[in-house]
Amino acid sequence: MAYQGYGAPPGGFPGMPQQDPLYGYFSAVAGQDGQISADELQQCLTQSGMSGSYKPFSLEACRLMINMLDRDMTGTMGFHEFKELTQVLNGWKATFTSYDRDHSGSVEGHELQQAISTMGYNLSPQAMNCIMKRYSINGRIQFDEFVSCCVRLRALTDQFRRRDTSHSGNATFQYDDFIQVTMSI
Amino acid sequence: MAYQGYGAPPGGFPGMPQQDPLYGYFSAVAGQDGQISADELQQCLTQSGMSGSYKPFSLEACRLMINMLDRDMTGTMGFHEFKELTQVLNGWKATFTSYDRDHSGSVEGHELQQAISTMGYNLSPQAMNCIMKRYSINGRIQFDEFVSCCVRLRALTDQFRRRDTSHSGNATFQYDDFIQVTMSI
Repeated sequence: MAYQGYGAPPGGFPGMPQQDPLYGYFSAVAGQDGQISADELQQCLTQSGMSGSYKPFSLEACRLMINMLDRDMTGTMGFHEFKELTQVLNGWKATFTSYDRDHSGSVEGHELQQAISTMGYNLSPQAMNCIMKRYSINGRIQFDEFVSCCVRLRALTDQFRRRDTSHSGNATFQYDDFIQVTMSI
Repeated sequence: MAYQGYGAPPGGFPGMPQQDPLYGYFSAVAGQDGQISADELQQCLTQSGMSGSYKPFSLEACRLMINMLDRDMTGTMGFHEFKELTQVLNGWKATFTSYDRDHSGSVEGHELQQAISTMGYNLSPQAMNCIMKRYSINGRIQFDEFVSCCVRLRALTDQFRRRDTSHSGNATFQYDDFIQVTMSI
């Protein structure tokens, strides 16, 4: 006789990360401290198939992703940040895929601009042009570079907002703070 | 009978770039417009032996170098900028080599900090730490990454100075301008 509803839900206790299929990929590389570094994040994302049919994330992109969410400035990432990252990444992948209609793995410069506008960034044609030039090779942007671009744009906008306390669209930086914000992403 | 001192100096007219051995590498890839893009800069620097015994510059580093000196925002580089770049690069190589005593091709984090101080940047331990984490892999910094770090630090400091007109150590950025400055380097 089975006691319906008795016992722990399959896969562990409620709220425990063991339930989450992503936790397997994470814990396999995280080791005892429960944190992953950029090269371990690269392994995690490759093994969990996050880049889909696109080429795996570069170490550079992985370092940017860690820095984007690294609130305690340790240079590593815990499971909760990893989970948050995979959600953000899935959103960016969906956006990229919607523009990469021929599944070539890259989008055109003007499509990057449309994607950035769709994500809610209100930028001048000059700023769009800077971004397009920085991330395109022969006029096209690879998925990997698209993600680097999204990570930096999000992190820089976050940092700017924190300093634009009056929401005026202007922020004042002290030199050392400016270097910390801009050199780490 | 030879007319001593007669005729043009070997290699062309005085002041003409043809005299410059670097011009050969530059003109071979520049084409008719006299400008080189990031991938062409990579070729130029590899062929002219600028990285010495270190591994060739990545495309990422070459894009940063072009952006650092790209005053007209074309995304390309003329011969005079190329020459200016090689002089700056030689300085950075000399600094790096002085710390890379065992010629391993990499330096330690604290040596990067010393190098940055020696170059005249006055940064807090927190800022140094951000930079070290961003550019090191397993605690060491490769030559290629060292150059990327120097390029960005120089360009960001330049941009900051232009906006810190009162030399107070503080600068105010409008959001769109902040994104242009930080996303292009």
